[in-house]
Amino acid sequence: MKDITGGITAPEGFRAGVAECSIKKPGRPDLTVILSDVPASCAGMFTSNRIKGAPVLVSRENVKKGSARAIIANSGNANVCNGEDGLEAAVAMTGETARLIGCDSTEVLVASTGVIGRPFPIEKVLRGIPQAIKNLSNEGSNMAARAIMTTDTVPKETAVEIDIEGVPVKIGAIAKGSGMINPDMATMFCFITSDISISQKALRKALKIAVDKSFNCITVDGDMSTSDTVLMLANGKAGNALLKSRSRHFDTFADGLSEVCLRMAKALIKDGEGATRFITIQVTGAAGKDDAIRAGMAVANSALFKTACFGSDPNWGRIICAAGYSGVPIDENHITISINGVTLFEIGRVLPMDEKKLREEMSGSEITVTLNLGMGHAEATIYTSDLSYEYIKINAEYTT
Amino acid sequence: MKDITGGITAPEGFRAGVAECSIKKPGRPDLTVILSDVPASCAGMFTSNRIKGAPVLVSRENVKKGSARAIIANSGNANVCNGEDGLEAAVAMTGETARLIGCDSTEVLVASTGVIGRPFPIEKVLRGIPQAIKNLSNEGSNMAARAIMTTDTVPKETAVEIDIEGVPVKIGAIAKGSGMINPDMATMFCFITSDISISQKALRKALKIAVDKSFNCITVDGDMSTSDTVLMLANGKAGNALLKSRSRHFDTFADGLSEVCLRMAKALIKDGEGATRFITIQVTGAAGKDDAIRAGMAVANSALFKTACFGSDPNWGRIICAAGYSGVPIDENHITISINGVTLFEIGRVLPMDEKKLREEMSGSEITVTLNLGMGHAEATIYTSDLSYEYIKINAEYTT
Repeated sequence: MKDITGGITAPEGFRAGVAECSIKKPGRPDLTVILSDVPASCAGMFTSNRIKGAPVLVSRENVKKGSARAIIANSGNANVCNGEDGLEAAVAMTGETARLIGCDSTEVLVASTGVIGRPFPIEKVLRGIPQAIKNLSNEGSNMAARAIMTTDTVPKETAVEIDIEGVPVKIGAIAKGSGMINPDMATMFCFITSDISISQKALRKALKIAVDKSFNCITVDGDMSTSDTVLMLANGKAGNALLKSRSRHFDTFADGLSEVCLRMAKALIKDGEGATRFITIQVTGAAGKDDAIRAGMAVANSALFKTACFGSDPNWGRIICAAGYSGVPIDENHITISINGVTLFEIGRVLPMDEKKLREEMSGSEITVTLNLGMGHAEATIYTSDLSYEYIKINAEYTT
Repeated sequence: MKDITGGITAPEGFRAGVAECSIKKPGRPDLTVILSDVPASCAGMFTSNRIKGAPVLVSRENVKKGSARAIIANSGNANVCNGEDGLEAAVAMTGETARLIGCDSTEVLVASTGVIGRPFPIEKVLRGIPQAIKNLSNEGSNMAARAIMTTDTVPKETAVEIDIEGVPVKIGAIAKGSGMINPDMATMFCFITSDISISQKALRKALKIAVDKSFNCITVDGDMSTSDTVLMLANGKAGNALLKSRSRHFDTFADGLSEVCLRMAKALIKDGEGATRFITIQVTGAAGKDDAIRAGMAVANSALFKTACFGSDPNWGRIICAAGYSGVPIDENHITISINGVTLFEIGRVLPMDEKKLREEMSGSEITVTLNLGMGHAEATIYTSDLSYEYIKINAEYTT
């Protein structure tokens, strides 16, 4: 696997274009079209929130067909809770895009992010689509990454090249999201392209593996949005032999895709609203994988733990406390906790610590917590950010 | 039911005394003894966190006996994760108290709050017990309420008088807690006294009813502590005929006790770390009571909703979003949402609002959200606070 430039337009046969529809503040593009020159295998994963944006409902149906040509996405309005009007608007976005590129509207996937419950400015969006298509470019990834941002402070894109039986295959992605990020992918988008030739079944399988290891292992504030969407297009332009889920090289592709998703997931955390620390929580010694994830997520979502990280406070009591209410069976006499490599609590025993030194170390940009439950051999790694003044500022002032 | 003064020492035959053991900063009392002159029926409810403080383990055993003379409580160190030493310290606190007042050590209930995983300063505490007992007074409630405080900014006490078959019966309480307050009573203490004559069974039943309606319906930050404790003593000094759980007047007592607990619960929220708003979430139209509580708690614990309240932002999208990920089956087309009496979303339809006016109203000290799920007839009321800069400050700097 090697790093390459070009993001979502790095793979062969993909172009991206943006437009400014005045949904967001003037001067900020807010509409993105990602186009595959030829029909592509597609797969998607969506929020598990019971309230789903209209675009989620439309895209979920369209990905079932297994083949698509384009993704159309806007920021600034999530098109959620808009009833029939919302659904019509989402369908109109696919229809207009399809008309202009010459395909069926069911071959277009759609996503919207932004405020919930505001009438969707479909007229503005429809006027923007021709403009976005007009400036489609195979160097459009960075602009596309910018046009899907909401409270994000930096665009997020990445690309890698892998080798499938001697054929170079590229995978590229852009992502957005900085708050409301939680398992099951809250208010985040990740759009992924690849020029691999792959069966629909294998693509879906690889995407699930990658998302479970990445977006489903991160959390900023425990909130889960109505619009989370991961969409992937794979157009076969690399010319490899069709990859199937039982192919010998399936794992090579799944690993590459997982790496791309993990990079994007980490980028979301680093840009977490008000984040000053990137926090890694390694849970080991769990009785099962689910226990490991549950305990790690409880710690990652604990407001007390997150504020302690913001304050560079090695308050491991908040870690064991969160694990204790996670619902996972634990026993303090089996637990060992380390922060940045310093063991503070070992199999039920408090160890002496050089607090001043540890505080200094925690004041850096990364904090790694290791929580060994001592109950088995399952593991999980969860990523999160701290909870800072800036988070409050951003979220008390967002919207309106 | 009428309000009376005197807090926990209002009921006949109860005295309270405090001491300064230097666990907290100098000048702040940190040890409390609450004594009943005669053996009292007792009941307790404790944290459901899997990690439990040593005092929780000791008190849980002792309340099973059904009769107690005293409560001893300290603040500044929670005596959690201290292994055998911690258990010995908790037992030593009951033993020394029992020795000085002349009862069995199992007739003393114990509670500790403060930092987790610090060696417990049992020598300091043991030296303080005689002092606390020496200044026991039937006017000691307010001092006791102060001595159990940690990050609390105000002492919390209340008392009421009810009438049981013509006999005046008093119920008094003190409480502490301002962060980590969540269902199942996180890092909060509430100690309750009454001079009612009541069977152990009836006392336990009434306490469960009262706690379910009060402490289990509040949340500050979703964290649940290792030390949450509600303890109640009822010494029979009022002279009423022994109240049993099937007595005609049981409900009168249960209502009085519920009112006392609800006042304390609301006081905890009002003193919630950094709280600037008291938020009431009324969930109606739920298919069942559990659904109502779950949906309400998801909203109450949503960092996005809480920061919106801090910012006086009528962002009802964050309410429906939180309800959506609560796990409760909901359908946006059945939902109606109001904030401070203004309906913003009605059976799936966004209503126009005078946003400026509503923002002004939300800038007051109380916000009431009504969330009608439109799925049935069950209801629940959840209380919480907003999430402010001050919360971050307090919790980034607490501990160490």
